[in-house]
Amino acid sequence: MYQASLTINVPFFDVDAMEVVWHGHYVKYLEMARSELLRTFDYDYPTMSDNGHIWPIVDLRLKYVASARYGQDIEVIAKLVEWENRLRIDYVIRCCETQQVLTKATSIQVAVDIENKEMLFESPGILLTKLGVERS
Amino acid sequence: MYQASLTINVPFFDVDAMEVVWHGHYVKYLEMARSELLRTFDYDYPTMSDNGHIWPIVDLRLKYVASARYGQDIEVIAKLVEWENRLRIDYVIRCCETQQVLTKATSIQVAVDIENKEMLFESPGILLTKLGVERS
Amino acid sequence: MYQASLTINVPFFDVDAMEVVWHGHYVKYLEMARSELLRTFDYDYPTMSDNGHIWPIVDLRLKYVASARYGQDIEVIAKLVEWENRLRIDYVIRCCETQQVLTKATSIQVAVDIENKEMLFESPGILLTKLGVERS
Amino acid sequence: MYQASLTINVPFFDVDAMEVVWHGHYVKYLEMARSELLRTFDYDYPTMSDNGHIWPIVDLRLKYVASARYGQDIEVIAKLVEWENRLRIDYVIRCCETQQVLTKATSIQVAVDIENKEMLFESPGILLTKLGVERS
Repeated sequence: MYQASLTINVPFFDVDAMEVVWHGHYVKYLEMARSELLRTFDYDYPTMSDNGHIWPIVDLRLKYVASARYGQDIEVIAKLVEWENRLRIDYVIRCCETQQVLTKATSIQVAVDIENKEMLFESPGILLTKLGVERS
Repeated sequence: MYQASLTINVPFFDVDAMEVVWHGHYVKYLEMARSELLRTFDYDYPTMSDNGHIWPIVDLRLKYVASARYGQDIEVIAKLVEWENRLRIDYVIRCCETQQVLTKATSIQVAVDIENKEMLFESPGILLTKLGVERS
Repeated sequence: MYQASLTINVPFFDVDAMEVVWHGHYVKYLEMARSELLRTFDYDYPTMSDNGHIWPIVDLRLKYVASARYGQDIEVIAKLVEWENRLRIDYVIRCCETQQVLTKATSIQVAVDIENKEMLFESPGILLTKLGVERS
Repeated sequence: MYQASLTINVPFFDVDAMEVVWHGHYVKYLEMARSELLRTFDYDYPTMSDNGHIWPIVDLRLKYVASARYGQDIEVIAKLVEWENRLRIDYVIRCCETQQVLTKATSIQVAVDIENKEMLFESPGILLTKLGVERS
């Protein structure tokens, strides 16, 4: 099971007039954790494109449970849950101190061939090799 | 039916290394259209808080269909689809020139009483008054 | 004299916990006005790179005089003041309603040859052609 | 001498179409280091406002020497160089691996009394106390 986590100290510039993190900034936190996750199996963005693919996000869902404030340490956990035909990653963001869940999210990415711009309907072999799995 | 739209010329700083708008920036475009929509019935953020409520986003979903590029004119349409117990707004982002759909999205907001921080399980009367509707 | 201006309605996501535009976001407003300015003489970013150059910002200075708030209309004026060896653009940001100056800024860009990554010590001929001027 | 430093791994969303960090994002990196610096003498933003002051940035200057790329580790060093009448902080951003200087910057902040919104022409006593210095 591939999983990665990251701790972020909420910066001042991410906090809005309500004194909480503006909801759109969580998309950045998800991406930071996703990069960490992709690095655990050596398939970060530069490796993807060196192998001829990009993996655009096609679906993103966030559920906001509680808000984060300036200076708060938050943990972002990203877990790989689908890889055979697309990448589905699930995320949980928690307050480091209380372990309270702040946000839950899911992203879905599909592989696109850089050469012909066509979407692949199953994940390229290089991903399965990196993950050390075989197609079922 | 309350609806608003907004045209955005994609700025350089929203475009990523793939030369397309980074997926997280669409959350800003949604908010710009949502502000326009809320203004059509005189219930923008300052009016909300003057009336004792904030309306945090609790759920956000985006489906990315095609990508936008630097300098492209895109139209963001926001439509109010639920208001009785919560605000649900649906969005479509299109290329102005080709009318191609780029992104679809939905946001859900709930009212919170500023005084006691409690979530309201039905929309406050002021919203219905602003909308010119009665509770069903 | 090349000059361009742009009106921005301050979005909610640019406002910080002090309820004013976070100082770093003005850099975006400057770039939006700079793009407008470059378009007045047909030398926007895609044209630059089609002609073999990029023009990175090498120096940026901002003086903050007064703050902007959510929903406020602000005007950003960009004026080309040097072009022979580098691009220097001066900016003024004003409140549309009161004409009060909010921010003043200056950016300096130099041409870099895309092929050999070398900085040019005088502006490429294509810029002078676009501007309709001759080297003095 | 008060100084703080911070290491940032350049996130994908900060990189522009030229595949380098967009120049405006460095303002965020400066602020992250500034928060660290203010914490070294217990005078972070919440402490400032608890003591009745805000400290807006009034002047900001950045010199861009070289560019940073996705995934690069960069170090941001912030050093307090003036405090008696205003806060002046100087910054250097380096590549962690090569120690190459990427960006130099300076910010100037002045104290404003939260109650009457007036700018103070010398730093409030609480800052000098926190710094453990006396007015010269």
